Amino acid sequence: MSLESFFSPKSVSVVGASRHKGKVGHEILASLLAGGYPGEVFPVNPKVEEVLGLKCYPDLVSIGKPPELVVIVVPAEFVEAVIRECGKVGSKSVVIITAGFKETGERGRALEEAVVKAARANGIKIIGPNCLGVMSPGDKLNASFGGDLPRVGGIAYLSQSGALMTAILDMAAARDIGFSLLLSIGNKADVDELEIIKALGQRPGTKVIAGYLESIQDGDAFVRQAEIISQNKPILLMKSGGTGAGARAASSHTGSLAGSETAYEVIFDRAGIIRCDSIKTQFDYAQAFADQPIPKGPNVAVLTNAGGPGIMTADAIERSGLTFAALTDETKSALSKVLPPAANIHNPVDVLGDALADRYEAAMNIVLDDPNVHSVVVLLTPQAMTQCSETARIVVKVAGAKPGKTVLACFMGGRKVEEAIHILRRGAIPQYDSPESAVATLKAMQQYTRWLARPERVVRLFPVNRRKVEQIIGRHLRRGEREIGEMASKEILEAYGFVTPKGSLATTAEQAAAIADQLGYPVVLKIWSPDIIHKSDVGGVKVGINSAKQVMDAFDLMMYRIPKKMPNAEIMGVLVQEMCSAGKEVILGMHRDPRFGPLLMFGMGGITVEVLKDVAFYLAPITASEAKEMLIRTKTYSLLKGVRGDPGVDIDAVAEGLQRLSQLVTEFPEIKEMDINPFIVGPQGSTPIAVDARISVEKTD
Amino acid sequence: MSLESFFSPKSVSVVGASRHKGKVGHEILASLLAGGYPGEVFPVNPKVEEVLGLKCYPDLVSIGKPPELVVIVVPAEFVEAVIRECGKVGSKSVVIITAGFKETGERGRALEEAVVKAARANGIKIIGPNCLGVMSPGDKLNASFGGDLPRVGGIAYLSQSGALMTAILDMAAARDIGFSLLLSIGNKADVDELEIIKALGQRPGTKVIAGYLESIQDGDAFVRQAEIISQNKPILLMKSGGTGAGARAASSHTGSLAGSETAYEVIFDRAGIIRCDSIKTQFDYAQAFADQPIPKGPNVAVLTNAGGPGIMTADAIERSGLTFAALTDETKSALSKVLPPAANIHNPVDVLGDALADRYEAAMNIVLDDPNVHSVVVLLTPQAMTQCSETARIVVKVAGAKPGKTVLACFMGGRKVEEAIHILRRGAIPQYDSPESAVATLKAMQQYTRWLARPERVVRLFPVNRRKVEQIIGRHLRRGEREIGEMASKEILEAYGFVTPKGSLATTAEQAAAIADQLGYPVVLKIWSPDIIHKSDVGGVKVGINSAKQVMDAFDLMMYRIPKKMPNAEIMGVLVQEMCSAGKEVILGMHRDPRFGPLLMFGMGGITVEVLKDVAFYLAPITASEAKEMLIRTKTYSLLKGVRGDPGVDIDAVAEGLQRLSQLVTEFPEIKEMDINPFIVGPQGSTPIAVDARISVEKTD
Repeated sequence: MSLESFFSPKSVSVVGASRHKGKVGHEILASLLAGGYPGEVFPVNPKVEEVLGLKCYPDLVSIGKPPELVVIVVPAEFVEAVIRECGKVGSKSVVIITAGFKETGERGRALEEAVVKAARANGIKIIGPNCLGVMSPGDKLNASFGGDLPRVGGIAYLSQSGALMTAILDMAAARDIGFSLLLSIGNKADVDELEIIKALGQRPGTKVIAGYLESIQDGDAFVRQAEIISQNKPILLMKSGGTGAGARAASSHTGSLAGSETAYEVIFDRAGIIRCDSIKTQFDYAQAFADQPIPKGPNVAVLTNAGGPGIMTADAIERSGLTFAALTDETKSALSKVLPPAANIHNPVDVLGDALADRYEAAMNIVLDDPNVHSVVVLLTPQAMTQCSETARIVVKVAGAKPGKTVLACFMGGRKVEEAIHILRRGAIPQYDSPESAVATLKAMQQYTRWLARPERVVRLFPVNRRKVEQIIGRHLRRGEREIGEMASKEILEAYGFVTPKGSLATTAEQAAAIADQLGYPVVLKIWSPDIIHKSDVGGVKVGINSAKQVMDAFDLMMYRIPKKMPNAEIMGVLVQEMCSAGKEVILGMHRDPRFGPLLMFGMGGITVEVLKDVAFYLAPITASEAKEMLIRTKTYSLLKGVRGDPGVDIDAVAEGLQRLSQLVTEFPEIKEMDINPFIVGPQGSTPIAVDARISVEKTD
Repeated sequence: MSLESFFSPKSVSVVGASRHKGKVGHEILASLLAGGYPGEVFPVNPKVEEVLGLKCYPDLVSIGKPPELVVIVVPAEFVEAVIRECGKVGSKSVVIITAGFKETGERGRALEEAVVKAARANGIKIIGPNCLGVMSPGDKLNASFGGDLPRVGGIAYLSQSGALMTAILDMAAARDIGFSLLLSIGNKADVDELEIIKALGQRPGTKVIAGYLESIQDGDAFVRQAEIISQNKPILLMKSGGTGAGARAASSHTGSLAGSETAYEVIFDRAGIIRCDSIKTQFDYAQAFADQPIPKGPNVAVLTNAGGPGIMTADAIERSGLTFAALTDETKSALSKVLPPAANIHNPVDVLGDALADRYEAAMNIVLDDPNVHSVVVLLTPQAMTQCSETARIVVKVAGAKPGKTVLACFMGGRKVEEAIHILRRGAIPQYDSPESAVATLKAMQQYTRWLARPERVVRLFPVNRRKVEQIIGRHLRRGEREIGEMASKEILEAYGFVTPKGSLATTAEQAAAIADQLGYPVVLKIWSPDIIHKSDVGGVKVGINSAKQVMDAFDLMMYRIPKKMPNAEIMGVLVQEMCSAGKEVILGMHRDPRFGPLLMFGMGGITVEVLKDVAFYLAPITASEAKEMLIRTKTYSLLKGVRGDPGVDIDAVAEGLQRLSQLVTEFPEIKEMDINPFIVGPQGSTPIAVDARISVEKTD
């Protein structure tokens, strides 16, 4: 069911309409009328005959036809009855403004559940409760008590905080920001952020989807939907409340490194969602995405009437990783013809302090024509001769005449540039309070461009022995065992195409020596017991053994000492294993986030993971290029690639390991956490060895 | 000589006064009069008898007494003559507005030099040329053409960009920002930023010194002066133009890691200067420093009428490293008495959407009384019942009645909060456009507090053999040798109390073996030749030699092979050295910045330096606690302290090494760059060994 009835209804009823100014039931009706809503409006209130010049109905039934949208403002305990009435008359879209539900405690929660149940039974969709309502400026619909209807524009905003929406509306009015929709989603009892972004993704008037969210209900579905929508419309989210979920009980590296914010970072990344740190930043970005084309590349030119701000902007461009455009000789020669000799014809182009609007016009035309320029930041300081407003008009005109390149403005100052700033904003030129904010916006646009250009997602499926893993996991779950031991973990890895160290279990010293002789030296000895998880802690691991005699000594010492330390451990013997030492140790891991699913982790081993926490996460299933991207994102990537004569390791082999892990954890949701640590990788063409693994499983629902 | 005559002159002459509106010589005079300047004003222009109702003099002499301040606006080529006239009449303080000097090229530079020469000969101080002038709102002095005189306030601003000053003035007017002084310093031909901050440091009305600088002339003196002033007044600087000095030819690690921005970061840190990334941030901070007390600790409380913005602020506090204040039980109980039951009495304190000003008042009083609270951020969203302006008045009143705690406001919105924001600002409550900006400001204040609380700087002086180093460096410089070889470097290190590996030079294989026997095994052999810098590249280093026989073999192989590779190298023999392997390898280094002097560097060895560039810089001479702070600032510090059972190294011994290096490079400005690499440090109580060093020297002026 579409949400269009919420946005462009042909008729609206306000249930709980009031004649008393200040009452929500009055304000909403007044807002509807003040906004010039062209459809039919039906106030409902049994105690009143007329409100604000409109006939007031005792109930929905007596209207005689179903209002397309019903806005409910009656007290919480009466809402359920109104919903049933909606069902009776056939109204399917309801906004519940009323508070006093889930947010107030147990009783409210029960009321809310009853309301939702009644709605679902009648095929009714609800926005709210406990919200400010809905505004659709293009439809002249203001079914809210958030304030006046804003200008029509390309931004659709959904807010989980009603109060924030009042502030945004007020700010938007002062800054000429236009909206296609504004939605306060309150308790999200029925319609949630997922359904809304889906609807906004299809709305023609919406160019940018922005929102403030404190929680995301169905993370997995949300990210899949967002990824589809981002392809056409940028999504800018401010997500708050990521703090202090408290220490997580985690048995794996991956689990302990995946903080509460990690999952959001990973899924926002994957879905192309642009994360905003503040409402201010969000609107800085949103205006540019709504009003300007996305830059075709990273090269920024700066046009200024003052040296200082030009340098600041250049600094910001350099720091942000964008490129300071090198102007062509043609551009420089053309500029030298229209600018005074003292002007700077290199980027930043300085038209000088005495520049009038015409000089800006000439320079801007030339700079926009330069094929090396993808975007332009126009700076202005209000000096003695500066024509602020006239220059603003010029900027609007020139940018309009040469579409295709991104133009942002930063007119610095206060009162002297106030009118100019209005002209810019109304002319679809985003204006920023500092050069740094303008550059940060270009950076966000550039990141979105890069996301759009990402390679197609083709997840490779390896031939694996799935049945084998089913058996192992099934056996563990039936026995109630959550940790899979080393031997079984190795079997799982091998079933998914990982190569593990060769070796066998020995029960006598002589047998151990014979196995070692066959493997070749050096070898590793590991105590073998389902009851010993941390082998090294009990002296159960001995590496670098070089002869049969040493093998026998080590075997006997383990068998003698360990039972003393752990008298209750059932000891099956000692594993004799080939030693993998040629190569670098990395960690591949997975932590299953309860909302978003399997987060894969990659990290270099040793201090880079433990001390520097230099790891990268990504959501499974991943593609080959995403797997490589994970490696590249670690700060120590150059160590993998090879530094100072070191040949480096087979990057593709590591990426393949991540993809195999991705397939394993995608096919087995029972796996909650796992580390392959160390995963030893050698030079180009060698086969990595998964030396050890830790796997935790859990029954799925 | 003080600069007071520039700020509070009893009389001002404008040389080049003009009757034509729009001309700078007219505008400056008009600004002086419009500002209500109470002193005497003498326009000078031989062609005019009267300007703006004032008698105009043909020259300075005919005024009959020396004007305390002379503002010159005549064309560049006439300025020198006016300066001489100033000398004749006895005027000592001159602002040169006129442009067309150094900034225009060679001819202008010559003119500027002549002007400065004339001024110095007559004991005259100059601000400018090529500047906007001087404003001192408290003295009603507007000797500028930057715009109207702003409000009186605690911020003194100096700008190297005149145009930026016009923007700042315009912005300040719109935002009620008050200034004690505004100075456009132009080409800084005479009076520079150093002299100005010195003067501002002593001005009673100035509470904060803020500035925009593109260059700092005498870095060393500036940082020493700034450190003294920061003790009483915060200095907030925006420094631009740090970009692209291009690749630096550096022979040392330290040199290649010390980027062009490093020196500024280091000296700003040392001097307590608060570095600002943008003009916006700078004024965000400046208003708080000017109008509010510095927080006594990191605990922040939040007061809000909306949940969403409260959570955002909490997130920002957590991310910034400040502390989200835990309110006392008394506070919570008092809040529960004055707030409705649905209100949140924990931090963030939510007074709810229907709060009137009185509820804010009651809650704010209680929260400010809480001993666990050091600062309060008051948030407001303009909801239906919100009394924006009245609440602003309350915030001003309550904060004023309870001084000592920092109160910042973030009233979100636009027109509805516009008046409220004016009330806040005029009431000395800084207002921010987002909660994140308010929190960033508290963070900057907190960092300043920590700087103020730093331990007293006592630089330890070690007894050293300075004479020895003088001889070595002198010998190299006389011979024109810039690189000091390994043997001489070792002598320098030993003279400054470093312990270097034991060893001697051998000229025969037998002698080498005898030395090795005496040292004990393992030993290292290194080819010894003034002509071979990169020994390993020619097979001139052999480590881990375990017997006399191996020593002799290695000796003979080097002596046979190396002359073939480098036939022209003079080979003195082979150094036989003890091998230091117990301990961790770190690097101590120094790079002498041309403006600020010796930057010391500390880094862990190996990949942490080469790949992660995990190093810390500090300006020499350093104290013991600064040396330790350098270690702590590296991300890999925990490796030094010891992780996971590793006992770690003797931190104090590393710090002492840095202090000895500090003393060496402070006493020998001839040392341009040096690395001690590796510096091997063992556990607590052990003596670190300076294994190898590279020292470059240069003649000093």
